Amino acid sequence: MPALSPLAPDRFPDLPVIDGVRFAATEAGVRYKNRTDVMLALCDPGTTVAGVFTRSSTRSAPVLDCEAKIGVEGGEGAAILVNSGNSNAFTGKAGEASVARICAEVASATGLPGGRIFTSSTGVIGERLPDDRITAVLDRLVAGLDPAGIEPAARAIMTTDTFPKGAVRRARIEGQDVKIAGIAKGSGMIAPDMATMLVYIFTDAKVAQPLLQEMLSDLTQRTFNCITVDGDTSTSDTLLMAATGQAAEVTERGGPFEGALHEVMLDLAHQVVRDGEGATKFVEVAVTGAVSDADARKVAHSIANSPLVKTAIAGEDPNWGRIVMAVGKSGAEADRDRLSIRFGEIEVARDGWVSPEYAEAKGAAYMKGQDLRIGVDLGMGDGQATMWTCDLTHAYIQINADYRS
Amino acid sequence: MPALSPLAPDRFPDLPVIDGVRFAATEAGVRYKNRTDVMLALCDPGTTVAGVFTRSSTRSAPVLDCEAKIGVEGGEGAAILVNSGNSNAFTGKAGEASVARICAEVASATGLPGGRIFTSSTGVIGERLPDDRITAVLDRLVAGLDPAGIEPAARAIMTTDTFPKGAVRRARIEGQDVKIAGIAKGSGMIAPDMATMLVYIFTDAKVAQPLLQEMLSDLTQRTFNCITVDGDTSTSDTLLMAATGQAAEVTERGGPFEGALHEVMLDLAHQVVRDGEGATKFVEVAVTGAVSDADARKVAHSIANSPLVKTAIAGEDPNWGRIVMAVGKSGAEADRDRLSIRFGEIEVARDGWVSPEYAEAKGAAYMKGQDLRIGVDLGMGDGQATMWTCDLTHAYIQINADYRS
Repeated sequence: MPALSPLAPDRFPDLPVIDGVRFAATEAGVRYKNRTDVMLALCDPGTTVAGVFTRSSTRSAPVLDCEAKIGVEGGEGAAILVNSGNSNAFTGKAGEASVARICAEVASATGLPGGRIFTSSTGVIGERLPDDRITAVLDRLVAGLDPAGIEPAARAIMTTDTFPKGAVRRARIEGQDVKIAGIAKGSGMIAPDMATMLVYIFTDAKVAQPLLQEMLSDLTQRTFNCITVDGDTSTSDTLLMAATGQAAEVTERGGPFEGALHEVMLDLAHQVVRDGEGATKFVEVAVTGAVSDADARKVAHSIANSPLVKTAIAGEDPNWGRIVMAVGKSGAEADRDRLSIRFGEIEVARDGWVSPEYAEAKGAAYMKGQDLRIGVDLGMGDGQATMWTCDLTHAYIQINADYRS
Repeated sequence: MPALSPLAPDRFPDLPVIDGVRFAATEAGVRYKNRTDVMLALCDPGTTVAGVFTRSSTRSAPVLDCEAKIGVEGGEGAAILVNSGNSNAFTGKAGEASVARICAEVASATGLPGGRIFTSSTGVIGERLPDDRITAVLDRLVAGLDPAGIEPAARAIMTTDTFPKGAVRRARIEGQDVKIAGIAKGSGMIAPDMATMLVYIFTDAKVAQPLLQEMLSDLTQRTFNCITVDGDTSTSDTLLMAATGQAAEVTERGGPFEGALHEVMLDLAHQVVRDGEGATKFVEVAVTGAVSDADARKVAHSIANSPLVKTAIAGEDPNWGRIVMAVGKSGAEADRDRLSIRFGEIEVARDGWVSPEYAEAKGAAYMKGQDLRIGVDLGMGDGQATMWTCDLTHAYIQINADYRS
């Protein structure tokens, strides 16, 4: 078990009860010993469910199953069952059979129709999922369901994570408070487009499924699709959101609910980067002045994924030449003589060369910080994009040359 | 200075004299101390020159200058002057002025027109090139020109390289032997498309410039654009080829000359991977059965650039699940149930799951080798592509968290 990330938050946040959803976690022994590795979230009737999934062409059996079930709403409740230790990915027809068996057993244990059972699996790829170990603990899970059980659920889904991830925001709708609480796991195999990890978000607000799906998909573009640890994309990435409908109703885009949801998603996304395998620095890459947002995104992506940039940051080296390199290779429209670069508030380069005021000592002092910001202005137009990444350290190599994921 | 790569060849090859070209190398003190850091190659009248360059939008002043001069032939000779230690990249108008001064001085020292002087610079980005140190040694370089001086030239252009790189092949044309000899530098910031490093190739064959350019550009796609160390692309990448015209003439594509040139380029490309920063394993990634060659290339690129695949190889872990992940994220058309994977001759996975005959011990034993081959068949069509890469080790982090490139 790797040491706690130096970028970890002080503690797991106090997540409130969300009316209409209860949680349970237990030890099924899927792969890990002496820790919880399966969690169940059970939502009451009237719940709507939205989801965003990896676009990998080798995505796992549970992802394919979830995708097929999203958007089919009949007023029933819903269950989310997640195991860690085995991803049930690249397990052929046997993997699909495992999902079917788990869903049937969860349906029977909860009284829900099979189409309302969503499952996720995370962990090793290519090994048969011992689904009997999961179905064997279903009665125990159902018996242990607790409205306050979200933190144990967050712990049960961890793999190489060094801390459990949770976030909460509240929004005021028509004089009534609604709550949004989410949990996530993820630390390696993190890349944008598409996305990143396992994330489960719950709200007591009432939101029609199409509206919930629209908000979730759009906000993913500005949150989970804007982070990268190693540029690698999981076969299991799943974001599910359940709205139990027990508080005020959200009827349109762009209001306080969507703002709060954005914050929950960004908070969880940042926590995943802060738990990036081996990370010692959290880095915001903000690109402005591109000819389009898409071009700005290319540049931000190129910088945030560059091993040479990320190792320089690990070495606390203000090596802006590597940022120039990453801009150049991005494929975005750029003009050397209009490019400027900042470290935090320090102007490092402008007009195609080092700034006359820049002194290496300033940059070196800045790089000793734990939260860094690289600003790049292309000087071409109004396009902008922001991404978040971490440094690339020895610990990343250690974790990934040893751990079988 | 990092230790010699464990993948280095036994020794520098015996490179023959190429009639019509002489070499010199010396110490100019551009950045490094107590080693040669500038080389001059001088070609006789009748030489044709072709070139392929980085497509980076922040490419260096010497690259821009070379690009402008390629293809303008007037029967004169040509000079190639290369320094290491400073790349003269992202140095604004001052960088262009440095190139102009160097070209003018080389022209004056050699009697060649300025349009026939090609320069390259490799090393740190963003610092002014002390061109006066280079022009100060020009007389010494010209006085030291030697037809047998290609190996010292190969040594003078090294940066983080742990060994100088050279290759030679011969071809029989109309009963006459022609020779092709090349040198290269490069070990980090190596990525396909475009390219790689500094490479200079010389032949005594007579080849019209358009034909030489066509061959060089096409063969680059199958050699230097098929290797990757870290997915990062230099601002200085330059491949120049000079044909002195002192032996038999090559008049068409596809003959023994092009075959020999392909071998020289592939040999140098492989040597660059073998000198990949921190590399301990040389890995061929061969993809077949894609719907197109372009799709096969996407898959090969995705596997060869994946930090999770490359760290698994460093750890001698036959982690084929990460290869499935890399196929999935490539964007190529793939069907989990038709995918098969091989390590060397060992079938690891087929039909969407691990092969019934596969045993982990077999894969683990194979991974202990130094030269590895990962074969992926997508089972979709006839598209294929091969790329070469190395593992990702602690030494890569060491080199790049310390070295200012």
